[in-house]
Amino acid sequence: MVMGELPENIDLAVIGGGVGGYVAAIRAAELGMSVALVEKEKLGGHCLNYACIPSKTLIHISNILEEIKDSEKFGIHVDNATVDAKKMYDWRINVSKKLEEGVAFLCKAHKIDVFKAAAAFIGPNALQLTDGITLNFKKAIIATGSTPIELKGFEFNDRIIDYKKALMLDYMPESMAIIGAGYVAVEIGTLYAKLGTKVAIIARSDVLSRFDRDAVNLVKKRMDSLGIVVHANTSPVSYSDKKITLSDGSAIDAEIVVVAIGLRPYTDNLGIEKTSAKLNEKGFVVVDKRLATDDKNIFAVGDVIGEPMLAHKAIRQGIVAAEAAYGMPTEYDNIVVPSVIFSDPEIAMAGSIEEKAGITVTKFPLSALGRGIALDNTNGFVKIASNQDGLIEGIEIVAPDANAMIAEAALAIEMGAYLDDIANTIHPHPTFSEAVQEAAEAALGRPVHFFYGK
Amino acid sequence: MVMGELPENIDLAVIGGGVGGYVAAIRAAELGMSVALVEKEKLGGHCLNYACIPSKTLIHISNILEEIKDSEKFGIHVDNATVDAKKMYDWRINVSKKLEEGVAFLCKAHKIDVFKAAAAFIGPNALQLTDGITLNFKKAIIATGSTPIELKGFEFNDRIIDYKKALMLDYMPESMAIIGAGYVAVEIGTLYAKLGTKVAIIARSDVLSRFDRDAVNLVKKRMDSLGIVVHANTSPVSYSDKKITLSDGSAIDAEIVVVAIGLRPYTDNLGIEKTSAKLNEKGFVVVDKRLATDDKNIFAVGDVIGEPMLAHKAIRQGIVAAEAAYGMPTEYDNIVVPSVIFSDPEIAMAGSIEEKAGITVTKFPLSALGRGIALDNTNGFVKIASNQDGLIEGIEIVAPDANAMIAEAALAIEMGAYLDDIANTIHPHPTFSEAVQEAAEAALGRPVHFFYGK
Repeated sequence: MVMGELPENIDLAVIGGGVGGYVAAIRAAELGMSVALVEKEKLGGHCLNYACIPSKTLIHISNILEEIKDSEKFGIHVDNATVDAKKMYDWRINVSKKLEEGVAFLCKAHKIDVFKAAAAFIGPNALQLTDGITLNFKKAIIATGSTPIELKGFEFNDRIIDYKKALMLDYMPESMAIIGAGYVAVEIGTLYAKLGTKVAIIARSDVLSRFDRDAVNLVKKRMDSLGIVVHANTSPVSYSDKKITLSDGSAIDAEIVVVAIGLRPYTDNLGIEKTSAKLNEKGFVVVDKRLATDDKNIFAVGDVIGEPMLAHKAIRQGIVAAEAAYGMPTEYDNIVVPSVIFSDPEIAMAGSIEEKAGITVTKFPLSALGRGIALDNTNGFVKIASNQDGLIEGIEIVAPDANAMIAEAALAIEMGAYLDDIANTIHPHPTFSEAVQEAAEAALGRPVHFFYGK
Repeated sequence: MVMGELPENIDLAVIGGGVGGYVAAIRAAELGMSVALVEKEKLGGHCLNYACIPSKTLIHISNILEEIKDSEKFGIHVDNATVDAKKMYDWRINVSKKLEEGVAFLCKAHKIDVFKAAAAFIGPNALQLTDGITLNFKKAIIATGSTPIELKGFEFNDRIIDYKKALMLDYMPESMAIIGAGYVAVEIGTLYAKLGTKVAIIARSDVLSRFDRDAVNLVKKRMDSLGIVVHANTSPVSYSDKKITLSDGSAIDAEIVVVAIGLRPYTDNLGIEKTSAKLNEKGFVVVDKRLATDDKNIFAVGDVIGEPMLAHKAIRQGIVAAEAAYGMPTEYDNIVVPSVIFSDPEIAMAGSIEEKAGITVTKFPLSALGRGIALDNTNGFVKIASNQDGLIEGIEIVAPDANAMIAEAALAIEMGAYLDDIANTIHPHPTFSEAVQEAAEAALGRPVHFFYGK
């Protein structure tokens, strides 16, 4: 961009070029607003460059390798399978580059001005960019995301790294200790174990402590078979000579230490105090249903406004905030944010499957499903929670295609589906999606492929 | 069963132990009816033993082999991958056996009497079984399915086989010619080509002539890259010396000839003329919305009552017929029967995506999807058809997880979903299911990850 053409006065400034930010920018541009998108690192943000995309790419690769080893039973014999870490790295870099270029193309097509700089509010209608430019805006959307929390005594360096660096290694570490046992730790631990790294997970309590134990137990069993050692109810004390010492006195090998204890909202140096927007006690930007902050011209989306810190929540909020900033009556009124843990097996959830008064939870095991048996993939189930009227409150899917199947569950809940809506919808055979239907049929007291007793 | 215990008088006789029949038997037993299930070959019928299940198993194995070859780009190197046809065969036999045992277990648990025999009506309330037993029934359900159509001049023998035999070979033929070019031909041709067989398809008109050309063109391109030769607008004339001569004069290698020109309803020797039930001019049993024939005590389900001849349609109809036979007001009122072609890429459909007056069809390409790019799986798209009000009429998915994803589309249409129901439902990232959401957003005039121009 030529400096002379600079639109110093714009309708909308979006701070942060991650999925929440660039989607908001695109939607606002579609509505006819003049939009500036400010990103200090890479378009696409964490998700495209360091998190969702590279992790799912690595998981896919590690699963292929695992599948190769596991195919002897099917009649496929492979002499020798090896992994080229540099080539895997190049693939991810290339994917991130393509995706970043894709976002840049979309911005250009929508005539969005992209600024590669950091931004700070200098007033309720102005941003100062680190490249010297001042943006005067009518509306702004904060989409600055989150940043990994550091652990005292385990400050980041070459060997102690965050999940982003862990997903962008260009070599295979011989050993890796992961501090933290949430879904990021499980995903990273599982994929590296499949690729041949000796993995240990250090859990303050237990692996995936906030998730359904029936599902987690399957994941733990699989992790165990992959040689992943979980050190539960312990904490790391010190790290030296490629060894971590734990609070229980044991020492474990760790060429690399990954600190994955969570994320904190990222509002550092944002100058938010120059506006009427407020942060809550946890540091999240406070917003209403329209995603407006206490400053009515300033909106916020994604990780920076709270849990769950998931890309697809940010995407939806980006659209809502753009429409709200434009003046449409759009609200963020989604009932469910589905989530997927790309563990082995995959766990996907929409809504709550918690057993409580008035709620019935019904489980259908993959071991009763034709496709599960055919592909030797019986390590999973579907759970469906419904109230006395049969209204669906939540669905959990533990299955190979769980990530794709959970969309049906999310739509069902958003549309207020009852059990018979799913039970009577024909699901194609033979697919894992039938397990959702079978669970609904069982919940209605008319199971087909599983006998629950009389 | 001891002969003396024989329940000669039963509430319900189900003829045919395929998916339509055994599901009907289970549902009726759940309702408290005394049920006899008569099957002359194997419980589970074609689907479990010769069709859906073994084909999807073989397709899965062939895809693993293909994925191995294709993983060099990701950094996985494999020295040599070979296929053991006998082991593959044993796997399928074992799977079918497990599934058959599973059905037998369910029948036993529900106290369904299973008769291994053929059955013929000897009156409106009696069946004669080939094992000598006579069954007096109050209600009956015909679930006799379909059988492959023979082609004159290409009568079945050791080398000229139907799709069922083609899916249960215990060796890899060097060459295979498939007469017919519907989805069965494409699935079998693609999987054998991936496993190393030289495949030719002989099409009266073209491959998958009744399906969306945009989707079929992707499949044809892929078939071409796998070395499958399609002989379009031609017909087979004769077969000798492992060669087929075509009407255009050419001769093609064919160690095995697969005749896959369709199925016909199977009512041979059923004695249907002893009842008031009627067949239509194509030989299908005529039924009403309750799946009752013209004989009010006799119902029929599945392939034997008409197109589409799909297992999951039969399953749903089995439940409907059982409930109707019991006296419940259940009707077969499904709006859509989703279908999946397990081609490469997979094509899944629910409803109609035909372009016509009042209907808008919007396409979102996988090349614009993060997960597609990350996994190098951009060979596909989602199409969504909606009317002027935004009511969804049909969805087509051409993608790796299409078989799992189409369930959302089927539910959406059954529930009367509008575009914004899907567009505003959060779909997890990064998954192929986002493509359905993106197509809906684009159809609403607010695309996100694809630029359709101004």
